[in-house]
Amino acid sequence: MSLKLIEKHRSFDGEQCKYTHYSEVLQCDMTFSIYLPSNKEMKKIPLIWWLSGLTCTDDNFSQKSGFQRLAEKYQVAVMIPDTSPRGEHVADDEAWDLGQGAGFYLNATQDPWAKHYNMYTYIVDELTSVASSLVPHFSGEESIMGHSMGGHGALVIGMKNAARFKAISAFSPILSPSQIPWGIKAFSTYLGEDQTSWKEWDASELIKEPSMPPILITQGTEDSFYPGQLDETYFLKNAQENNQVVNYEKMEGYDHSYFFIATFLEDHFAFHMKYLR
Amino acid sequence: MSLKLIEKHRSFDGEQCKYTHYSEVLQCDMTFSIYLPSNKEMKKIPLIWWLSGLTCTDDNFSQKSGFQRLAEKYQVAVMIPDTSPRGEHVADDEAWDLGQGAGFYLNATQDPWAKHYNMYTYIVDELTSVASSLVPHFSGEESIMGHSMGGHGALVIGMKNAARFKAISAFSPILSPSQIPWGIKAFSTYLGEDQTSWKEWDASELIKEPSMPPILITQGTEDSFYPGQLDETYFLKNAQENNQVVNYEKMEGYDHSYFFIATFLEDHFAFHMKYLR
Repeated sequence: MSLKLIEKHRSFDGEQCKYTHYSEVLQCDMTFSIYLPSNKEMKKIPLIWWLSGLTCTDDNFSQKSGFQRLAEKYQVAVMIPDTSPRGEHVADDEAWDLGQGAGFYLNATQDPWAKHYNMYTYIVDELTSVASSLVPHFSGEESIMGHSMGGHGALVIGMKNAARFKAISAFSPILSPSQIPWGIKAFSTYLGEDQTSWKEWDASELIKEPSMPPILITQGTEDSFYPGQLDETYFLKNAQENNQVVNYEKMEGYDHSYFFIATFLEDHFAFHMKYLR
Repeated sequence: MSLKLIEKHRSFDGEQCKYTHYSEVLQCDMTFSIYLPSNKEMKKIPLIWWLSGLTCTDDNFSQKSGFQRLAEKYQVAVMIPDTSPRGEHVADDEAWDLGQGAGFYLNATQDPWAKHYNMYTYIVDELTSVASSLVPHFSGEESIMGHSMGGHGALVIGMKNAARFKAISAFSPILSPSQIPWGIKAFSTYLGEDQTSWKEWDASELIKEPSMPPILITQGTEDSFYPGQLDETYFLKNAQENNQVVNYEKMEGYDHSYFFIATFLEDHFAFHMKYLR
C-alpha cells in the first residue's frame, strides 16, 4: 500500500498526521488522520479508533475534540477514518444522511452501493494493516469509540470483533438502527429490504451475544436527535436480559455537538485505558 | 443595543454562546462568541478577550482551541470578537490579508475603509459594554490574548489601555507590523502612506512607553510565517531598552495552527490568572 503524508502538525508533544491512500477495499482514494503520542519512554502503546458521525470527515474529531491532550496524557495512538468512500465515481445521494459522508460502517450488498460501500472491511482489515505500520511500538491492544453514526459503528465493529477490542464507548450513538429513520433508510438502501440481513449491523441485536467488551455510552439530554434517532430503550433492555453491563450516562443540558464530546472525552479515554493496560 | 442569541451550547459545565448585533461603531451586523463558566460559587469572575488571526471568525478559537476546559477550570469568561466588519455593503478586497477578515484591530482613516473599519473602538468601547452586560458577577478585571494578526491586536489594544488590561499574551504575533509585508499592506491601505500615523498601531513602538502590562509570547519554530511576518528582533530590542519584561518563548517543532495554540493555551491561561486575581 502506498501512503502519502499530506499534513503533519506537532500537537501536545506528539504528531497529528493526515494521510491519503488508495483503498483496494473501497476502490477509491481515501483520507485518514492518526495521532502518535510522543512516547518518550519508548514503551509499547495501544491504539484507540475514533469513528465520526454523519457528514463528518476525519477533520471534525481532529480539530474540534481536543483529544490530542488526552492521547498524549495516556500515551495512546488514535486512528480516525473518514465516514464513507469518496469520489466522483463513487455512488452518492443528494441527502446528507445517505451516500458519501454516511457509510454507516457496514458492507453494502445492494447496487450501486456494493462496489464501494464496504467501510466495515476497510476499517477492520485494510486500515488496520495501515495503522499497525504507522504506530511505532504498537502493543497490539485496541479499543474503539465514536459519535452518533460513528457510535453505531464503534458498537457494531467492537462487538463483531469482541476478542479484539478491549473496550467500546460512544457519544450519542444510534443504538437501534433497524428501528429509527436514519438506520432504516441506510439499511434498506445498502442492505436491501430483507430485514434479517440488518441484524448483524444492529448493536441492539449484537448485544444479545455472549461476552461483549465493556461499554460506556454518554448521551446529552438536550440533543435534538434524542430520543428519536438515538433511543436507548431496546438496546439497554437486551443488554440487561443478556447480563451485559453497559454504562449508560445521561448528561443534563448537553447537545449533539463537539462541545459535548470535548466535555466528556476525558472520561471516555480514562474508561478505555482501564482495559488497554 | 439589541443582541440576538443565535447559538448556545453547554460546554464543560459552562455556556458557549454566539450572538449577533448591529454595531453602531462598525455600521454593520456583527457576530461574536462568549463563554460563561458555570460559576457555581457565584463569585466575581474576570474576563479574557481573544482576538483571532487573518481569515478567522469567532468560530476558529471557539471550535478548535479547547479553551472552554480552561475557562471553566479557572472560572473566567472569554469574549471572542470577529476579525473585521462584515457585509456586502462593507468595503472589501480580493486578497485574504486585506479587507473583510483582516481588520487589524485599528481605526482606519482612509476611504473607503474609514466608515466601517474601526475594530479598535468596536472592541474597546462598544463590545466592552456588551461584555459587561453578558457576564454575571463580572469582577471588572480584564486581560487580552490573541493569535497572529490577533496577537498584534492583543498587544496593541492591551498596551494602549495599559491600566485596564492586567496581562497580555500572544501566539505567533505580528510584532513589528510597520516592517513586514502583511502590516505594510494593511497600514498603508487603512491608515495611508504617512508612516507617523502607523506608530500608535505598532507593538514595537508602544513597548517603548512606560509601565506596560506583563506580556507572554509563544512562537513555534516550524511556523511557515516565522521569522518573516513574525520577526521578534525589533520588538524585543525595544522592550529590553525600556526595561519592559517580556516572556518570549520559542517552541520547537510547532507551526502556526490551532494544534499549536491548543497545546500551549493552558500556559497562557495560567499566566493571565496570576494577574486577574
